[in-house]
Amino acid sequence: MSSSTANQSKTGKWVYSFGGDKTEGQADMRNLLGGKGANLAEMSNLGLPVPPGFTITTDLCTAYYDNDRNYPTDLDGQMSDAMALIEQAVGMKFGDTSDPLLVSVRSGARASMPGMMDTVLNLGLNDETVEGLAAKSGDARFAYDSYRRFIQMYSDVVLEVDHYHFEEILELHKEGKGLNLDTDLDADDWRIVVKGFKDKVEEELGRPFPQSPQDQLWGAISAVFGSWMNRRAVTYRKLNDIPAEWGTAVNVQAMVFGNMGDDCATGVAFTRDPSTGAAEFYGEYLVNAQGEDVVAGIRTPQQLTIKSKEAQHSKLPAMEEIMPVVYGELVDVYKQLEKHYRDMQDIEFTVQQGKLWMLQTRSGKRTAKAALKIAVDMANEGLISKDEAVCRIEPSSLDQLLHPTLDPDAERDILTRGLPASPGAACGEVVFNADEAEVEAAAGKSVILVRVETSPEDIHGMHAAKGILTSRGGMTSHAAVVARGMGRACVAGAGALTVDYAQQVFTVAGRSIKKGDIITIDGSSGNVMMGEVPTVQPELSGDFGALMVWADGSRALGVRTNADTPEDSRVAREFGAEGIGLCRTEHMFFDAERILAVRQMIVAEEETGRREALAKLLPMQRQDFVEIFRIMAGLPVTIRLLDPPLHEFLPHTEEEIAGVAEAAGVDAKYLGHRVKELAESNPMLGHRGCRLGISYPEIYEMQARAIFEAALEVSAEGGETVIPEVMIPLVATAKELEILKAKIAAVADLVATEKGTAPHYLIGTMIELPRAALQAGEIAKEAEFFSFGTNDLTQTTFGISRDDAARFLDDYINQEIFTVDPFVSIDQDGVGELVKIAAERGRSTRDDLKLGICGEHGGDPASVAFCHNTGLDYVSCSPYRVPIARLSAAQAAIQGFATGSD
Amino acid sequence: MSSSTANQSKTGKWVYSFGGDKTEGQADMRNLLGGKGANLAEMSNLGLPVPPGFTITTDLCTAYYDNDRNYPTDLDGQMSDAMALIEQAVGMKFGDTSDPLLVSVRSGARASMPGMMDTVLNLGLNDETVEGLAAKSGDARFAYDSYRRFIQMYSDVVLEVDHYHFEEILELHKEGKGLNLDTDLDADDWRIVVKGFKDKVEEELGRPFPQSPQDQLWGAISAVFGSWMNRRAVTYRKLNDIPAEWGTAVNVQAMVFGNMGDDCATGVAFTRDPSTGAAEFYGEYLVNAQGEDVVAGIRTPQQLTIKSKEAQHSKLPAMEEIMPVVYGELVDVYKQLEKHYRDMQDIEFTVQQGKLWMLQTRSGKRTAKAALKIAVDMANEGLISKDEAVCRIEPSSLDQLLHPTLDPDAERDILTRGLPASPGAACGEVVFNADEAEVEAAAGKSVILVRVETSPEDIHGMHAAKGILTSRGGMTSHAAVVARGMGRACVAGAGALTVDYAQQVFTVAGRSIKKGDIITIDGSSGNVMMGEVPTVQPELSGDFGALMVWADGSRALGVRTNADTPEDSRVAREFGAEGIGLCRTEHMFFDAERILAVRQMIVAEEETGRREALAKLLPMQRQDFVEIFRIMAGLPVTIRLLDPPLHEFLPHTEEEIAGVAEAAGVDAKYLGHRVKELAESNPMLGHRGCRLGISYPEIYEMQARAIFEAALEVSAEGGETVIPEVMIPLVATAKELEILKAKIAAVADLVATEKGTAPHYLIGTMIELPRAALQAGEIAKEAEFFSFGTNDLTQTTFGISRDDAARFLDDYINQEIFTVDPFVSIDQDGVGELVKIAAERGRSTRDDLKLGICGEHGGDPASVAFCHNTGLDYVSCSPYRVPIARLSAAQAAIQGFATGSD
Repeated sequence: MSSSTANQSKTGKWVYSFGGDKTEGQADMRNLLGGKGANLAEMSNLGLPVPPGFTITTDLCTAYYDNDRNYPTDLDGQMSDAMALIEQAVGMKFGDTSDPLLVSVRSGARASMPGMMDTVLNLGLNDETVEGLAAKSGDARFAYDSYRRFIQMYSDVVLEVDHYHFEEILELHKEGKGLNLDTDLDADDWRIVVKGFKDKVEEELGRPFPQSPQDQLWGAISAVFGSWMNRRAVTYRKLNDIPAEWGTAVNVQAMVFGNMGDDCATGVAFTRDPSTGAAEFYGEYLVNAQGEDVVAGIRTPQQLTIKSKEAQHSKLPAMEEIMPVVYGELVDVYKQLEKHYRDMQDIEFTVQQGKLWMLQTRSGKRTAKAALKIAVDMANEGLISKDEAVCRIEPSSLDQLLHPTLDPDAERDILTRGLPASPGAACGEVVFNADEAEVEAAAGKSVILVRVETSPEDIHGMHAAKGILTSRGGMTSHAAVVARGMGRACVAGAGALTVDYAQQVFTVAGRSIKKGDIITIDGSSGNVMMGEVPTVQPELSGDFGALMVWADGSRALGVRTNADTPEDSRVAREFGAEGIGLCRTEHMFFDAERILAVRQMIVAEEETGRREALAKLLPMQRQDFVEIFRIMAGLPVTIRLLDPPLHEFLPHTEEEIAGVAEAAGVDAKYLGHRVKELAESNPMLGHRGCRLGISYPEIYEMQARAIFEAALEVSAEGGETVIPEVMIPLVATAKELEILKAKIAAVADLVATEKGTAPHYLIGTMIELPRAALQAGEIAKEAEFFSFGTNDLTQTTFGISRDDAARFLDDYINQEIFTVDPFVSIDQDGVGELVKIAAERGRSTRDDLKLGICGEHGGDPASVAFCHNTGLDYVSCSPYRVPIARLSAAQAAIQGFATGSD
Repeated sequence: MSSSTANQSKTGKWVYSFGGDKTEGQADMRNLLGGKGANLAEMSNLGLPVPPGFTITTDLCTAYYDNDRNYPTDLDGQMSDAMALIEQAVGMKFGDTSDPLLVSVRSGARASMPGMMDTVLNLGLNDETVEGLAAKSGDARFAYDSYRRFIQMYSDVVLEVDHYHFEEILELHKEGKGLNLDTDLDADDWRIVVKGFKDKVEEELGRPFPQSPQDQLWGAISAVFGSWMNRRAVTYRKLNDIPAEWGTAVNVQAMVFGNMGDDCATGVAFTRDPSTGAAEFYGEYLVNAQGEDVVAGIRTPQQLTIKSKEAQHSKLPAMEEIMPVVYGELVDVYKQLEKHYRDMQDIEFTVQQGKLWMLQTRSGKRTAKAALKIAVDMANEGLISKDEAVCRIEPSSLDQLLHPTLDPDAERDILTRGLPASPGAACGEVVFNADEAEVEAAAGKSVILVRVETSPEDIHGMHAAKGILTSRGGMTSHAAVVARGMGRACVAGAGALTVDYAQQVFTVAGRSIKKGDIITIDGSSGNVMMGEVPTVQPELSGDFGALMVWADGSRALGVRTNADTPEDSRVAREFGAEGIGLCRTEHMFFDAERILAVRQMIVAEEETGRREALAKLLPMQRQDFVEIFRIMAGLPVTIRLLDPPLHEFLPHTEEEIAGVAEAAGVDAKYLGHRVKELAESNPMLGHRGCRLGISYPEIYEMQARAIFEAALEVSAEGGETVIPEVMIPLVATAKELEILKAKIAAVADLVATEKGTAPHYLIGTMIELPRAALQAGEIAKEAEFFSFGTNDLTQTTFGISRDDAARFLDDYINQEIFTVDPFVSIDQDGVGELVKIAAERGRSTRDDLKLGICGEHGGDPASVAFCHNTGLDYVSCSPYRVPIARLSAAQAAIQGFATGSD
C-alpha cells in the first residue's frame, strides 16, 4: 500500500463524505472535490436520493505527485472513517462475506476530463463476497455478472490487461454454448467465464487477480491518480488549456444496481435538448444494465420520453411508458436540479428494483446552437439575467453557427444516415485512424475520420478532422460528446456502415468507399453523402440576434474587421463589424491585372520608372477603396500602406522569371539579377513596412492619393462620409512617421487643390515592434491612432517566426513552456506588457489617441478580454470572428476581468 | 540681399566682436561662436595679436535654415556696428577707394568640418579699391595679386565658377610671356590676368563679377551657410556623428597680408609633433604667401625649426633661421597657448612686414600614438591630471595603435618615398578615384586610393580605402589631416609619382603601376612598396601601458573578450581581457574534422542517431575547452551552448549535398530532403538557441559534459581553477531555462559521480529577446548571470535583420532617422530601455546577479559608457577592442555620464 511508503508528507483533510447522514461538501467546492464530487454533495444537500460515498480531494492528487507518487500518512485513517459512514448508511460492510458493500470508484476533476481512468464498478467483489452477494440478492446470475464485469473493468483500467482478452473468452464461451446475447448466459455460465477471466489475469500478470477489497480499493484510487498524467489526459488538457496543477478527485460510492432485473435500469439525460436547445427532457436508458453500457454504445439505447422515441423512429419502449412512476420522480428531480443550478443539466441515474438513485449532475455539454437557445430561453424565462445569458456562451463556439451548411438545392448522393450527433456540414477525404487524420490534416487536407466508434485515444485525430463518422454509438457516445465540444461535425451510429480497417475501406448499401475518397457528412441531419456537396452560409437564428443585441448593449470595446476586399467587407458588416480595422493593400497588388505593373515598378531602378508603373496602378487602387468605402459608409476604414518586402511580388524559379520577363518586356537576366538582389535572409525583419515608404516614397504617395480621391468620390455621391485612417506599418521611430506623415499630408493638400475639397483623414501607425511600443510616447506626437499588430509584435517580442515555429511549437506545448500558442492567444506577460506600455505612453502624450488591435488575436476571446482590460478602443478581426469578438468584449465588460488570462 | 526678404524672423544677438577694443566672446562659447570664433576671442582676451573681426553665431545658421534660408531683419544692423569697430581698430574703411579695409570670411563650426566652404580672403577688393590698395601699400603688384586671388577664390566658392578656368587663363598668360613661376609676374601681368578672370566670370554667369563690397560680403556669408548643407559636409557629419542642428558660425576678420614681400610669411604649426607626440614645436610656412598656399600644397612648404628642416632633409631655410625675431615671438605665443589651453594646439599665423598676427588656434589633430604620448607627457609634466589624460584619448583611436605594421624582416620592393602622413601599414589594389574605392571596398577588396592630392570630395573614398597615397601636399595637407583623423595609413607628397587618371596608371622611377596592381604603403616611414609586404603586430609603447594602468585604476566595469579559439583568447588576455564573456561553440563545429559528425547528428531522425554522432564530437569539444581554460586560468569563461539553426551546418547546392552525402554515407536524396525540411523563412527567428536544447537536449548535454570534464581536467593540472559559466542562448521564458538548467545540472552530477569531484560552474542566460528583458524578474530566478546579446536584441527590438539592413540603412542615415547605425552603437532609447528594465528586474529578484554585455556594442565607446551608467558588471568585446573598452570604461567612470549618448 503506497501510503505506508511515504517518506515525507503533508497532512490535511483529504476526505469529504456525502449522502447518508453526513454531507461535508457542496457545489461551490468543485476545485477541491472535483465537479462530480461537489455535485454529489450538492444533490445530497438538496435531499435527492444519492448513494452514500466520499470524495478524496484534488489536493490529495497534488500532494501525491509532489511527494513522488506517495500518499500522506493520514489518508488511510480518513478513508476508513468515511467508509464506516457508508457502511452505517447502507447497513452493509465492505469486504463482508455475507452481505458485502460494493463500491464504485470514479475520477472527478474540476473540469470534465475524457482520457482519464473513468470508473470501476462493483469493487469489493472477490471469490467469497460474490457468494455473499448471490445469497443476499437471491440472484446468483446477477452476482456473477457483476463479478465478471468488475474483473474485466478492473483488469482493463487498473491492471492494464487488455479488454479484448476478456471479450475473446466470453465470445468463445458463447460460441461453445451456442448463445447469442449476454442476457442468454446464466449464473453457471458467468461462473465459468469468471474463472476464465481470473486465469487470464494470472497468465498475463504472473500473479492472481487481487482478492482483498482493500487492495482493490487502493489499486483503483492509484489508477485514477495515475491516469491524470497519462498521454490522453495530457493531450486533452493541452487542447483545452487545463493546467496539470488542478489535479483530480476520486469518488468512492456505494454501488446501486441497474442490472438486478427488469425493474432496474440505468440512464443518462439532459434537462434540455443538447443539440437544439429545445426545452424538452432528453435522454437514453437501458433496462437491466449498468451505467457504462449506455455510454459505451454496446447496446442500442432506448429513449426516455415518448416524444423522443417517436422522433427517433425507435421501436424500443420509452421509460415514460414502462416505468411511469420512477420516470415521474426523475422529471421532478431534473426540474429541481435545473432550477437549482440555473442551467441545463446532464444527469446520470440508476433504478434499482424500482428505486431511483442519482449518480451525477453537471452542466450539460451542448452545441453552440443549443447553448444560444438555452441561454436566451432562460433569460426570457427569468431564470437568469441577460448579462448571465451573454456570459453563458463560449464565444469561440459561435464558430459552429457561422460555418456553412449544405446547400439545400445541391444534388446529394446519400450513402446512408446516422445520428445527427454534432451539427454542421463537413467534407473531406476518408481516413480510418486518428494518426492518419493528423498527418493528412497537417499536410493541408480536409479529412473525415471514419471509425466503428471512437475512444479517448482518437482525440488528436478528431481534432485534426473536419468531421467524424461512426458506425456505432448514440448521441451520448464518445464520438458525439467530443465532437460537439470541439465543434466538429459528427454523424454517429450509422449502423449500415461496415468498416474494414485492414482494407482501409467501408462498405454501405453495396458500395465501397476507400481511403482518400471524398465524402460529405451533415451533422445536423445525420446524412452521409458521396463526394463533395456544395454548402451555403448559415442563416442565423433569432436567438443569435437577440443575444448579440444584449452583448452589444454591455460591451465597451468596438469591434471592427480585417477586410481587404468588398466581399469581406460586406460579410463583416453583416456580422456587425463597426468599420475596418485593417485593410491590407498588398493583397490588391496580387490581382492578375495588376501584378505586371507592380513588377514593373519593382524592377525599375530609378524613381521615374517606378512612378510610371505606379501611375498605372493608381486608378485600380482607387477603385478598390471606392467600393470598400461605399460598403462601410459612415464607419471608419483603416488602410495600411504597402507592407511586405517587394521581392514577395517577384517570381522565383527560373521558368517563372523568364515568363515574367517576357510579359514585362525586360531582360530575363536583368530580372533574375534584380530578384537575387532583392532576396533577403530574414524577410520578416527586412526592407518592408514603412521602410519601403522611406526608400520609395512614391509608392506611399500613390496609395495616399488613391485613398483620398476615393474618399472624395464616395463623399460626392452623397450619403454618409467615410473618414479613412491611413496606417503606416512597421514604425520603429517617431522620425519615420514624421517623414511619411509629411509626404502624405502633402498629397492630401495636392488632392484638395485639384478637387476643390479637402479630404478628411487620420494618420496613425501600427505598433508591431518592441521599440515602437517603448517609444510610443514619442510616436504619439505624430500618430492620431495606434493599431497593435500583435502578430508581428509576437514574432519580434519572442524572436519567433510564425512561419518557422511549427518545428518546435509542439515541443514547447508538450514541455509546458507555452500553455497556449502565443500566436493564437496573446502572451499577456510579454507581448501584453508591451501593449500596456504603449497604450499608457501613447495616451499620456495624446489623451484622445485611438487604440485598436488588428492581429489575429483580435478574434480570440482571451485576447479580447485583455484588450478590454487594457483600455483599447476596439479590436479588429476576420469577418467570421466578428460575432465572437462582440460576445467576448461583452463578457469582458460584464465580468470586469480577463476571462482567459492565466 | 537675403535679409530683406525675410518673411518672419527671430531676433537676437547674432554678432560678437573680437580683437580691437572690444572682445565679446571667449573659449567656452564654442557652441555659439564655433571653434574658430571662440578661440579668436580667447586669444584676444589673452592679449595676443589677433586682427580685429566679428563672428556671426551658429544660432544665426539655425535661424537661417529654420526661416527658409532668410536672415533675421536685425542682422544687418549688428553687422554694420561690428564692421565699424574693425574700421576703428585698423583705421581703414570697408569699401573705401583710397584706403580700403579688406576682410577674410571663414566658416567655423563647433567641430572642425572639412567639406564646407572654408575661406574667402581679400574680400572688399574691386576695380576701384584695388587702386587704393596699390597706392596705399605702394605695391601695385601686391594689390593686383591680391585682387586676382580674391576673384579666383570668390568665384570658385561663392559663385561656383570652376577654378580650372582661372588656372588656364594664368597658364596661357605665363606661356605667352614665357614666364615660369607666379612670382615672375609683375603688376601689369596681374592686371591682364584680372581682366581675363573678370571676363571669364561674366562669360560663365552672364553677369559681371560683383563690385560692391557689401554684396561680396553677403555673398560670402551665404556661401558659408549654404555649404553647411552641401553633400560633402553632410557626408562628413554622417561619418562623424555631428548633428545638422549644430550649424556653423562665420568669422569676418580684417585681412593681414603674408604676401606683401619677403618680410611677410604665412604658416601653420603644432605645439607638439602631431605624428609622434614629441614635445617639439613643429610646422611649416611659406615666405610671401597667403595662408591657403600652405594648406593647398601648391608650393612645397618650409620648416619652422632648424631641427625639423634637418630631419626632413629640406634644402629650404627654416623660419628660425631667416626670421629669428618673429620666430621668437611665435615660440612665446605657442608656449602661452599650450599652457593656457592645457593641450597641444594647431595654430595659424601670418607675418605682415615683420609683424606676427595670430589667425587661429585650436586643439591639434594628432595620431593615436601622438595623442597617447601627449596625454601621458602632459600628465607627467603636471599640466593635466591622470584622469584627464585618460579622457584625452578617443578610445576608438586606439585601433590605430593595435593594427599591424610592416614586418621589419620582410623583403621590400620600394617604389618611392613620400611624407609619413598617417601611421600604419596598408596594402591593397590601386584605385584612382574615390567612387571606385568605394565600389571595390564594398565588394570586399582592400584598396589604396592614389591621387595627385585629395579634396573634400574624396572623403567617402578615403573612408573606404585602407590607405591613401598622394603625389603632392605636406603633412598638413588635406590628405594627411583627414587620414590621421580616420586612422587610415597615408603617404603624402610622394613627388616622384606621376599620376595619369585617364590611363588609370601611375609611373615612378620608370615603372608603371596600373589600376588593380597591389601596393603597400607605410604611413609611418613614408615608403611606398610594390606588392604585398608582410606585417607584424604592433609593439605597444610604454605610454600605452601607462595610460591603460591609469584607466584600469579608474574604471568600474570589467572587460572581458569574445573569443572562440585559443588564439583569440591569448591575444585578448595580452590586451588585458579579464576573462571570456562569450565563447561561441558553433564555430568549433565548422572545423573540417568535425563537420561530418555534426552533419551526421543533424540528419539523424532519432535521438539515438544523434547521440552516436555527438559522442564523436565530445572529445574534440572537450579539448577546445581545455585549451581555452588553460589560457584563461583564474578568470571566468562564459560558454554559450549551440545557438545557430542546424541548417547552417548543412550544404546547400545540389553538388555540395551530393559530396556530403557520399562522405557521410547517406542517401543524397534523403540528405536533400532533410536540407529542405530544415530550411527556414526567417532563420534569425527560427529553430535555434535554447529551442534546439529543448528539442534535442542531447546536444546541450554533450556540450555541458565537455565543459565540466574540461574544467576538472584543467583543475587537476593544478594552478588556478576555472569557473565556467554555462550560457543558454535565446531564452524567452523562465521555463526554458528551468528545463535546460535541470538537464545541465544532471550532467554535472553525473560527471561528479564519474570523476569523484564536482565541477564548479554557474548557469545563466543571454538576454537577447525583448520578452526575456521584460521577464527578467522571472528568468533571474533560474539564472545566475545575464549576458545582454545586444546584436539580436537590436534585431528583434527594431525588427531589423542585420543581414538585410544594408538596403535601407543609407536611407535611414541620410534622412536622419538613425543618427548612427544601431548595430554599431547601442540604441539607448529603445534597446537601452530594455537593457535597463532587465537589469533592474533581474537584480530585484537576485541582487548578486552578474550582468554583462557580449554584443558588438561591448567594444563601442558610447555603448560602454551606457553599460557603465546602467550598472552592468562587465562588457565583452573582440580581442582588438579590449583596450578600447578598458579606456571607454574608465572615461565613463571618470565623467560619470554617457560620453556618446544623444
